[in-house]
Amino acid sequence: MSVLVVGSVALDDVEAPAGRVQGVLGGAACYFAVAARYFSPVRVVGVVGTDFPREHLEFLESRGIDLGGIVHAEGSTFRWGGRYLENLNERETLYTELGVFEGFRPELPRHFRDSVYVFLANIHPTLQRNVLQQAEAPVLTAMDTMNFWIESEASELELTLAAVDAIVINDEEAHQLTGIRNLVKAAEAIRERGPRIVIIKRGESGALLFDEEGIFSAPAFPLQQVQDPTGAGDSFAGGLIGALAREGSSGPEALRRAIIYGSVMASFGVERFSLDRFRDLTQDEVEQRFEEFRALTRF
Amino acid sequence: MSVLVVGSVALDDVEAPAGRVQGVLGGAACYFAVAARYFSPVRVVGVVGTDFPREHLEFLESRGIDLGGIVHAEGSTFRWGGRYLENLNERETLYTELGVFEGFRPELPRHFRDSVYVFLANIHPTLQRNVLQQAEAPVLTAMDTMNFWIESEASELELTLAAVDAIVINDEEAHQLTGIRNLVKAAEAIRERGPRIVIIKRGESGALLFDEEGIFSAPAFPLQQVQDPTGAGDSFAGGLIGALAREGSSGPEALRRAIIYGSVMASFGVERFSLDRFRDLTQDEVEQRFEEFRALTRF
Repeated sequence: MSVLVVGSVALDDVEAPAGRVQGVLGGAACYFAVAARYFSPVRVVGVVGTDFPREHLEFLESRGIDLGGIVHAEGSTFRWGGRYLENLNERETLYTELGVFEGFRPELPRHFRDSVYVFLANIHPTLQRNVLQQAEAPVLTAMDTMNFWIESEASELELTLAAVDAIVINDEEAHQLTGIRNLVKAAEAIRERGPRIVIIKRGESGALLFDEEGIFSAPAFPLQQVQDPTGAGDSFAGGLIGALAREGSSGPEALRRAIIYGSVMASFGVERFSLDRFRDLTQDEVEQRFEEFRALTRF
Repeated sequence: MSVLVVGSVALDDVEAPAGRVQGVLGGAACYFAVAARYFSPVRVVGVVGTDFPREHLEFLESRGIDLGGIVHAEGSTFRWGGRYLENLNERETLYTELGVFEGFRPELPRHFRDSVYVFLANIHPTLQRNVLQQAEAPVLTAMDTMNFWIESEASELELTLAAVDAIVINDEEAHQLTGIRNLVKAAEAIRERGPRIVIIKRGESGALLFDEEGIFSAPAFPLQQVQDPTGAGDSFAGGLIGALAREGSSGPEALRRAIIYGSVMASFGVERFSLDRFRDLTQDEVEQRFEEFRALTRF
């Protein structure tokens, strides 16, 4: 079943202990789409500027990702610069140049409107809701957000929260959204505000799922080396939503497996800079790491 | 099979968001012993001063814990004061008054020398090795340590490391011990220095086991409320070693189950101040939470 993602397409400059890259492919929609494509057809809505390298579009197209919703606008592509400190858990945003992303008003092409699984990456909550209105009969809608919208667009965010089935955020955002430190209580408070599924990403501590069945705890994969955590949350969401679409279900058992697939995709993504690990990652490796997650957690 | 623990018996003063307690029962050996006693017979070697309340000894005795190795010395009991900040992950040690613990030279009573599972809680590494020499035929020996010994007694610690089967430390200590941030690599480096089993405690991120079978990741139990994290690591170790003793095995499968039992005991311990949660905790509740860990991780 078809997955739709709406979000940023970016060029990233990243500094990390393992090295430094400039002008590489990034953006939530790209990480999400490439990860989700291992499981299901994917459609992308986003915007790029005139400086966006043709080769990046070719890479996405070579994966069979439908770029029919990518608008080419006059101006510069969204650019993000960040630096990771030694332990890789802390990062510093060096700059955010919105460029053409600032005026981004997502429009779904006619043939995208029947998308079944819809992921609203981190954009303005009003735009997220506009996308929902354009989707004709989604089976599952999920959203991300960030501290900026939580602080500056609380009431708009509240309306979007009430309109989605699922939210995928990190632990700090869950705290900011609710004022509650305890994750169990914070997730419960978020569920009362709309989404029946709350997924909290905790970086190298894994992820927690809260739904009507209770709580599921997924570990992060213990990696020997992490080059670049950028996009890990979006790769996670891509694996998650892609796997649900492949199963054609968002029931409790499917959700648990999908969260492991999300963790699998995040664990691969951070092994190299940008989306580089996905360039040679095979379907077999994905399924093999899923089995390694079983071995990691079995008792 | 019998479990021996050597370590501190203390009176604690604790401040946390949930409240404040003074002069309560604490110390690694107490947390360990009470947790381990849910699974197997336990023997304690430690020291208390003349100020140690009789009721605390009676509580431990009422659990059937063998206090034959507790020395009553002239002076004050080891006293620790700490304060937890809002998120409970950070704590400040307000004071450490060693008292009679300063001159503690652990001696195993004759009838303790046949102990099969030996846990060396956080004491001077030379004393830890002295205990090992007094144990006649242990099947499994395990140690804890802390930043203070890692910094000040590196060469003694190295000899103790080389003499034990297992080490149970937290992530920060694993980093300090090896200079390596990555936990997979740090655990491998520690295994090369002696212990075939390395267990890294990560607080609310759970625990990781590294042994000849590979890696096992155990979650922390998602609690709605934590009153006092003091002793969580020792309750964990008590559940772990106690469960191994009950199974009479430290093979890979038994180890995984034991780590979950350790996580179960830690999760109960932090629900209230001091050892208070254990005062009314039943065996049934322990087994029930073990099953809840299955539900939490199953996919």
